[in-house]
Amino acid sequence: RINEKRLMSDLHATCEWGKGERWGDGETDIGMSRLSLSDADKQARDWFAETTQSLGCKVTVDAMGNQFAVRPGTSDGVPVYAGSHLDTQPTGGRYDGILGVCAGVEMLKTLNDNWVETSYPVGVVNWTNEEGARFPKSMVSSGVWAESIPLEDAHNLKSVIPANDTATMKSELERIGYLGSTPASYKSTPMAAHFELHIEQGPILEAGDRRIGVVRGVQAYKWFTVTVRGRDSHTGATQFRHRADALLTASKMIIASHKIAHKHSALASTGILTLKPGSTNTVPGFVQFSLDIRSPRNETVDEVEAECKKAFEEIAAGEDIDTGSAPSERHCSVEWKTDFVSPATFFHDDCIKCVQEAGNDLCGQGEVKDLDIGAWGKFMTSGAGHDSVYTNKRFPTSMIFVPCRDGVSHNPAEYSSPEACADGANVLMGAVLRYDKL
Amino acid sequence: RINEKRLMSDLHATCEWGKGERWGDGETDIGMSRLSLSDADKQARDWFAETTQSLGCKVTVDAMGNQFAVRPGTSDGVPVYAGSHLDTQPTGGRYDGILGVCAGVEMLKTLNDNWVETSYPVGVVNWTNEEGARFPKSMVSSGVWAESIPLEDAHNLKSVIPANDTATMKSELERIGYLGSTPASYKSTPMAAHFELHIEQGPILEAGDRRIGVVRGVQAYKWFTVTVRGRDSHTGATQFRHRADALLTASKMIIASHKIAHKHSALASTGILTLKPGSTNTVPGFVQFSLDIRSPRNETVDEVEAECKKAFEEIAAGEDIDTGSAPSERHCSVEWKTDFVSPATFFHDDCIKCVQEAGNDLCGQGEVKDLDIGAWGKFMTSGAGHDSVYTNKRFPTSMIFVPCRDGVSHNPAEYSSPEACADGANVLMGAVLRYDKL
Ligand SMILES: NC(=O)NCCC(=O)O
Ligand SMILES: NC(=O)NCCC(=O)O
Repeated sequence: RINEKRLMSDLHATCEWGKGERWGDGETDIGMSRLSLSDADKQARDWFAETTQSLGCKVTVDAMGNQFAVRPGTSDGVPVYAGSHLDTQPTGGRYDGILGVCAGVEMLKTLNDNWVETSYPVGVVNWTNEEGARFPKSMVSSGVWAESIPLEDAHNLKSVIPANDTATMKSELERIGYLGSTPASYKSTPMAAHFELHIEQGPILEAGDRRIGVVRGVQAYKWFTVTVRGRDSHTGATQFRHRADALLTASKMIIASHKIAHKHSALASTGILTLKPGSTNTVPGFVQFSLDIRSPRNETVDEVEAECKKAFEEIAAGEDIDTGSAPSERHCSVEWKTDFVSPATFFHDDCIKCVQEAGNDLCGQGEVKDLDIGAWGKFMTSGAGHDSVYTNKRFPTSMIFVPCRDGVSHNPAEYSSPEACADGANVLMGAVLRYDKL
Repeated sequence: RINEKRLMSDLHATCEWGKGERWGDGETDIGMSRLSLSDADKQARDWFAETTQSLGCKVTVDAMGNQFAVRPGTSDGVPVYAGSHLDTQPTGGRYDGILGVCAGVEMLKTLNDNWVETSYPVGVVNWTNEEGARFPKSMVSSGVWAESIPLEDAHNLKSVIPANDTATMKSELERIGYLGSTPASYKSTPMAAHFELHIEQGPILEAGDRRIGVVRGVQAYKWFTVTVRGRDSHTGATQFRHRADALLTASKMIIASHKIAHKHSALASTGILTLKPGSTNTVPGFVQFSLDIRSPRNETVDEVEAECKKAFEEIAAGEDIDTGSAPSERHCSVEWKTDFVSPATFFHDDCIKCVQEAGNDLCGQGEVKDLDIGAWGKFMTSGAGHDSVYTNKRFPTSMIFVPCRDGVSHNPAEYSSPEACADGANVLMGAVLRYDKL
């Protein structure tokens, strides 16, 4: 069993780097704002490297800044990894990603304390920019490692926080000293398997009073940038019929995407919107917004995308006029760019079995097995993407979920109890050791 | 008669400071981006001071940076002013404001060339931050001068361009050396009358093939900042029914304001929208947007405001669910702040008469008088606010409009022909000289 106190004290200690908004009175009731490749992220990375080295690991950094810490086994061979990420949302919490990495480090400490020798090496990996918040492609560095995303595309990604930042992933990797010399490829840093502990980020486990979620896969999603072009004009001197109002048009599009997704039991969300010129008395002639479409089924994501494309064209052309809207003789144009595609993911049966067994071992036989939830029956489907999506493309992978309060995530008040965190860390270690045996 | 070539060459020369976007192939087919109290604005101000001094004027700068250049008359007394502004929108044109000031300077040159002595002094005034683009209160410096806006409120106004700028009006006035020692008050720099030449910024004169518009008044308007607060949450892991999506909510409000204004034949416009945290996979928990409501009638502006307040409350509380929207168990809050109020303005009959006579003198008897347009009969109502709104509160005022292409303004492609500019400058000078006689 892992050491719950030590796990939580490591987790909260590392959360000193990149502290965010306070949301409660407790000592650690503070969110996180540790954007990928920021100074705070560098501090967390340095801690990860120093700590795992002091525990006897060899640490490799690749060309995407991914950090691989490996503890030797009785025999040489390809390591089984526990992995997640240390970057956060701009207004994120203390658990998303961080718990997975800290639980991996806690696993190393527990193995050392108990003089456990594994048959093959075991490792912990910290993936770069999983969130896709600062550089808007989620899981981009495991994506490059899986050779699903070209290195150059990833290196050239531009920071979107703060607005008008000119940094790229490459320039920031260089700046903080994490542009590693090892190629970012599963061929250079192969894995026997990859296990990821994560907070659920949804309400299912909490509602069902379950301690452990065995994750069967991850829903499909696509990210787009939509650009609406109209005409800058005077708010006081331009009648509605002479306007091409890019913001009014974008507002209609956001609502349309919501309705179309709802009809398909899918999700559509806009998290970023910028406009030009940005003056109280100028009708904006330019709006750009992000669109994130998700569903457990690839086909549904494609259907929502196609319907949104059609609806947005009609809205831009002014064909949407419903009761009460003023028609206009001038219209907007609309343009789509696809930023990121992550098809539905199905994890490996061997890994799922290891997680299930480790869960039953902790919680009692049957506790985990009988969980009858999620889109595909008895195991869970993750609503969020994870680096495990990409490791699964190359090597056996699965995930462990633990409950988080109210299902809240990407919010400073994100919270999982110390007991839940310890449960997850125990199942993570159990799954890694089971796979090592396998 | 003024010198058309010289007027246009002065106008375009000053437009070298703060050049904006190119929109055509011609030498001067370039918009303006000369934000108030920027370095470029300082250059234009320096030109104004040096030029008017070299023409024999005494220049006074007040505590809002307003520049008053006065040419002596035969007798001492309170001057008749021609005035407008040299600041522009972030994506503005070469005529809005700039034409009025340059025509004032051209008037001084013409009077000097022809050894014209006026009975009393005549002046030209350059008002600070008329646009309200950088510091979001339009006509704020004539407003302080009229003692309608407290000096401290104006000095503390924060720059909104670029986003996150920390400058205030006062700090920028100090930085560029235009925090004058004269109190910003109509008592310190009184006027016999104020005449302002401006491009129409609307399509009426062009459509009616009219050279000169006699302006009867300015429509009412109010500016608000609306803040919507929801909850940051994960776009992939948060079902619609658990969201409090501040951007979806704001989108509905923008559309509602448009419909309400349309119903009242008024205008409602949003030119600024910012959100937090601004990440593709986080539902925004915070949105702030500007709302600009206008109508020729004060009561209509108040009605639109009241109906928007009611509608926004309902939308925030999730009571708006129409066909196809997903309901939510969580709601947003909404808050209004009033930033600026400019009631409907009616100019002074004496000044209107001077403009009308000067127009008839230029265009032929009856040309101006018979113009049967606008909300109040034969004279025009300005859709845009102008510093003349505030001078009119203290001293007789009116305005002269000249046609601009397609009614386009607050856009780089804003354009008035040299002939139209010269027409306006001639009527401006004619009106000033007539009032001097009066
Ligand atoms: N776990 C997590 O929040 N990942 C970010 C990628 C996503 O948007 O789903
Ligand atoms: N003339 C002009 O564009 N003034 C700006 C103030 C307004 O918004 O009407």
